[in-house]
Amino acid sequence: MTGRVFVSRLPLRLSGRVYRKVCAQTGARSFSRAVTGVTGGSGLTGDVDRFGGVTVDLARVGLPGDISEDAFGRILQGSLARWKSEGKQAVWLRVPISLTRCAAAASAHGFAFHHAKDDHAVLALWLGGGPSRLPAFATHQVGVAGAVVDESAGKVLVVQDKNKTKNAWKFPGGLSDPGENIGATAVREVFEETGVRSEFRSLLSIRQQHRHPNAFGMSDLYAICRLSPLTYRIDFCTQECLRCEWLGVGELAETSSATPVTSRVARLLLFGLERGFDKIDLAMEELPAVYSGVLYQLYHRPLPTQS
Amino acid sequence: MTGRVFVSRLPLRLSGRVYRKVCAQTGARSFSRAVTGVTGGSGLTGDVDRFGGVTVDLARVGLPGDISEDAFGRILQGSLARWKSEGKQAVWLRVPISLTRCAAAASAHGFAFHHAKDDHAVLALWLGGGPSRLPAFATHQVGVAGAVVDESAGKVLVVQDKNKTKNAWKFPGGLSDPGENIGATAVREVFEETGVRSEFRSLLSIRQQHRHPNAFGMSDLYAICRLSPLTYRIDFCTQECLRCEWLGVGELAETSSATPVTSRVARLLLFGLERGFDKIDLAMEELPAVYSGVLYQLYHRPLPTQS
Repeated sequence: MTGRVFVSRLPLRLSGRVYRKVCAQTGARSFSRAVTGVTGGSGLTGDVDRFGGVTVDLARVGLPGDISEDAFGRILQGSLARWKSEGKQAVWLRVPISLTRCAAAASAHGFAFHHAKDDHAVLALWLGGGPSRLPAFATHQVGVAGAVVDESAGKVLVVQDKNKTKNAWKFPGGLSDPGENIGATAVREVFEETGVRSEFRSLLSIRQQHRHPNAFGMSDLYAICRLSPLTYRIDFCTQECLRCEWLGVGELAETSSATPVTSRVARLLLFGLERGFDKIDLAMEELPAVYSGVLYQLYHRPLPTQS
Repeated sequence: MTGRVFVSRLPLRLSGRVYRKVCAQTGARSFSRAVTGVTGGSGLTGDVDRFGGVTVDLARVGLPGDISEDAFGRILQGSLARWKSEGKQAVWLRVPISLTRCAAAASAHGFAFHHAKDDHAVLALWLGGGPSRLPAFATHQVGVAGAVVDESAGKVLVVQDKNKTKNAWKFPGGLSDPGENIGATAVREVFEETGVRSEFRSLLSIRQQHRHPNAFGMSDLYAICRLSPLTYRIDFCTQECLRCEWLGVGELAETSSATPVTSRVARLLLFGLERGFDKIDLAMEELPAVYSGVLYQLYHRPLPTQS
């Protein structure tokens, strides 16, 4: 209850974390900027960011394509000594797949994989005090299910997966493709699994689950959307689904042959059918990002004054 | 309106997608199972999954630690010819960082990085028809902000970041650590930035943004939580924040010195203060996962019959 109290504290404990957070806002950009480093008597040089990190793109520093692990290790060792003497906080190495032998040499000097994608890997070494405070790479996969509700009939589209030990009803869905919006995933997956065309109406629920065996051990965020049907004829994917039906929402809420999340969402939908979907919906709106102007999608409860 | 119509269709178009989806459910497990492959006259062998994929862990197949890129390339070439003749759909190579030179050799045969983390990289090659349908690695980072509402004073805790061109109010927050729940991130970040202790009450909003420069070009999911204060004295991080205040919720909703999402959530909070937070909240509940029994966290609108 202290109101507008300004008390600063020593930031030392948090300095690494600040690097982590702010570095996450610049790391990717560093890679896309011109790297000015060259190899030579002075070793590797790269882009230096304002948080004391240096980024070296091995595709752009003029290394011989057939450089040996030993030769690269010697260059890196000299460069590391210099970066340490200069007080650098971290080193990022962007390694093209053709030069991956350099990653092995870097690992002998403490580097580890930060991430890799397609034709390159990124390794990092934390030089600051204490445990590494470098920003993590993407941690979550995003899956989406679509609950297509036929309001006039009080029914919802459900499937049963093939090859499961227990035949339980669930909503059709699957993983988002990279760059795909939640609503678009729901509409696409519903069509691919069931043949039914639909349109996005709202976000109903989010589930978070960690150390997910289906996500290479990473975390999983699962969104369930409410969709409206544009077509009604079922033409389901027989490789993926055992059954597909328009089932009464009340029946789905009651049956024991449904996954727990499906039962819960069925109860939500029943409440929505009886009292209005505005009771259960999160509306989506596109807003511009504050600095880039790029549109993002924002979900929250509808505001009474919202147009 | 066709009701319970069952029409199967040819699954050929979707067979790759089914591999993608189902493979996502097994890929990680494959890596943790014993790999039985050995190198020899017959080349590499690995675990075969039921979707026609084979996983080879190069740390466990008895390769000489100093195997050359050329020598590994020859072994891989022979193995690939065999896998293709056997109709395999995909090959996964788990490469320890000490053997990353093998990744370069694999790339000459069409392999690309799927992901990498710490001490190993995973490469993949799609052998099925058409474009690769292999499941993607994690695509999203998750950031969380906490709106700590002092209901009795009608105020909310806001900060202004240092080093921004425009001084705009926002809620304290930051990236989730791997394995950290959304609510825990909000509470932790609020304390680290402001010194205020709080507890999780609800999820208010989710934002999705793609090709995010602050996420190594991946996607960003940003969750805004409602928190209740346990302490009120501000002791903010001067490295990260320029200012930190308990600001009137109405004032925050009106000011032009706030990010668009902050203004929008302030309007939500004002509505909640006036009409009850049950109008804007998504409640959280822990439920057991259907097969593993592990608890996950589920967010949705409260149900009237929910205990």
